[in-house]
Amino acid sequence: MVSSPTAPSHEDLDALLSIRGRNVPAAPISDPRSSADYISFIYGFPDRASLPNSTVAAATNRALDKHGDWALQYGKTTGVAELIEVLIQKLQRDQGLSVANENVMITSGGSQGIELVFDLFVDPGDIVIAEAPTWMGFIDALNNVGGKLITVPLDEHGTDTVALEQELKRLAGEGIKPKFIYIISNFQNPSGISTTVERRQRIAELAAEYGVLVLEDDAYHDLRFSGERIPSIYSLDNAGYTIYLGTLSKIMGAGMRIGWLVAPERVIRRLAQLKFDGGSNIFGSFVAAEWIPDHLDDHIDGLKSIYGQRRDIMLHALQEHMPEGASWTNPEGGFFIWLTLPDQIDAGDMLPRARERGVEYLPGATCYTDGRGKNQIRLSFSFATDDQINDGIRILADVIHGELLELGDA
Amino acid sequence: MVSSPTAPSHEDLDALLSIRGRNVPAAPISDPRSSADYISFIYGFPDRASLPNSTVAAATNRALDKHGDWALQYGKTTGVAELIEVLIQKLQRDQGLSVANENVMITSGGSQGIELVFDLFVDPGDIVIAEAPTWMGFIDALNNVGGKLITVPLDEHGTDTVALEQELKRLAGEGIKPKFIYIISNFQNPSGISTTVERRQRIAELAAEYGVLVLEDDAYHDLRFSGERIPSIYSLDNAGYTIYLGTLSKIMGAGMRIGWLVAPERVIRRLAQLKFDGGSNIFGSFVAAEWIPDHLDDHIDGLKSIYGQRRDIMLHALQEHMPEGASWTNPEGGFFIWLTLPDQIDAGDMLPRARERGVEYLPGATCYTDGRGKNQIRLSFSFATDDQINDGIRILADVIHGELLELGDA
Repeated sequence: MVSSPTAPSHEDLDALLSIRGRNVPAAPISDPRSSADYISFIYGFPDRASLPNSTVAAATNRALDKHGDWALQYGKTTGVAELIEVLIQKLQRDQGLSVANENVMITSGGSQGIELVFDLFVDPGDIVIAEAPTWMGFIDALNNVGGKLITVPLDEHGTDTVALEQELKRLAGEGIKPKFIYIISNFQNPSGISTTVERRQRIAELAAEYGVLVLEDDAYHDLRFSGERIPSIYSLDNAGYTIYLGTLSKIMGAGMRIGWLVAPERVIRRLAQLKFDGGSNIFGSFVAAEWIPDHLDDHIDGLKSIYGQRRDIMLHALQEHMPEGASWTNPEGGFFIWLTLPDQIDAGDMLPRARERGVEYLPGATCYTDGRGKNQIRLSFSFATDDQINDGIRILADVIHGELLELGDA
Repeated sequence: MVSSPTAPSHEDLDALLSIRGRNVPAAPISDPRSSADYISFIYGFPDRASLPNSTVAAATNRALDKHGDWALQYGKTTGVAELIEVLIQKLQRDQGLSVANENVMITSGGSQGIELVFDLFVDPGDIVIAEAPTWMGFIDALNNVGGKLITVPLDEHGTDTVALEQELKRLAGEGIKPKFIYIISNFQNPSGISTTVERRQRIAELAAEYGVLVLEDDAYHDLRFSGERIPSIYSLDNAGYTIYLGTLSKIMGAGMRIGWLVAPERVIRRLAQLKFDGGSNIFGSFVAAEWIPDHLDDHIDGLKSIYGQRRDIMLHALQEHMPEGASWTNPEGGFFIWLTLPDQIDAGDMLPRARERGVEYLPGATCYTDGRGKNQIRLSFSFATDDQINDGIRILADVIHGELLELGDA
């Protein structure tokens, strides 16, 4: 046992905190490895068994052999040139985006990209618009910088653009300029829903009309199991109001911590001025630049087959086990199914009882900022194995039946 | 040629910027590889030829073989357990620090650690104290968050603690609480000077007395070529006001982008709540955890021999070539010599003429915030080869002689 220095008293430390530091909610230190103890539907973690260990090891050998004197050195603020080159080809081919070098910035995962966008645009009290429900990580990060979230609903066709227009009009009437609209266009986190092309077009139009940016988070783009690819908001936006965000987290490995922003050069240059990091993940970027051309396509094919099957197994298990009154989305890709339970269920309250039975999930209320979503659950089908999904949904349904019985008795 | 979308007009974009975004100075996008075109004394880049490519490749193979299902996965907020374990042993043995798991946080290079400390403690307008001159990267990062720098002088024994006490007393008298004191205790960047143990002790006392934190940046600790190791402020501070920062950038590879903070658990927990990054460099952390036990010691020995020799070559060349009236520091380790030229020289003005002759250096004024340092230069001896150092200092002296002649004629 090692003795730790005594720390300043709570009072002394509190007196030194920034506004941000004082207001951030206490949160446990998250550790994905603790999810290995459960049948875990909680986080959007990639499948453990399919991570490309051996090809990444081989790519590392090649990258260090070819570029060793730069791969372990400080790097360019906007990213390693070799990776940007490979990404531009991928974005052209898979995402249908025509972008030049000056439009791309490599970041430490999508999260650094989001942080830089906050730093450049959002002061405490500023408004950001997002879908409801949305990714809880985004909500946390916005809270960190003191931004205020206004939400617009999501239906089976994606972002409700009529509601978005009303909201933009209302805010403009009050003289308030929201800074940007955060949209997860494909297989949205947490709902699994994709926004239609017509609505994407409308989002781009509204952004230009109201002078508001769009942050399009397309983390799940390449994991489409069925249906047709939908053009991105970025590609539909001729006025250049969209910042497009991608990541290797779901298609190579989240541990790489490599993402990218695509935006007009003027925006990239401003973001770069706020970037104080000696370059993002230089070593990993050289490895990724070596790995992607040889392995990305096959790897994505493999993942689509794994995750597509898991989605099917989960949908089937939900159909088989869930009680009357429950409903769920039917995603064409990505990691998530959004489950809505009978009104009387509180998914947050229920979580400890599910964990006792060895199953964990994300309570839906974490994906809203206004207390909604109590009877909703985000189910990730990416991390649990096929067998675990079958067992886990059966157990979860059993826990829900128990809740309903108890609530009926009360 | 790829067409870029038209971007929002300057006016439209400016209307959306945060205070931080509006105030950040325009800066070129930095790219270390451009330094390869020069005899470069400008940045603190590790020697290219000594980067441990082959052992890192081998360590990657082992790490992915052992930990593949977690090395490419999201990771714990405070860092990969395997790396923290290895670091705790290293910190005990080399730095003389006794720390527990809860006192350590892995960061994306030292830079993320500094950013987190800013986020937790510094609001726009808040005061931070640093040595003058200090690391220009720290000045830039502080400017990014709108903090205000107050400096205390540095002499051949390090931070001037009499001046520090006066400054703390003056601020307290005005009811102002500075947030922290930033000290690079060993082989300071840019001066190369180490602060004596007596002064370190005094800094720790003053911090506790005035309720101010210390951020001790010890990036160069392991690169001591001569003299005795000096205990860190962290280890001398029984009241726990010190946050200690380290990095693999200078002793393994800057491209790893791995650093760490050591602090009382209460501080680490608060920093973790502001950390929104899916874990820092998970892949690289597993590689480093595998590499360090087998290779770090030998690698540091090799680096000390390389950099120690370069320091000697540079000191010798300065002695041989510099004009009368020039003086320079004599560092016991690290990367930098601080050169003071005759008053009439403006090192910033002179830089283009040095670059024309193929030599680059850092003008000293970038290491102050008040216009001082015009006739000073930071010379890094880490990146240029032995021969380049000899040639480069000769050329630089020649450029300086030319300036003096011209100024004498004017």
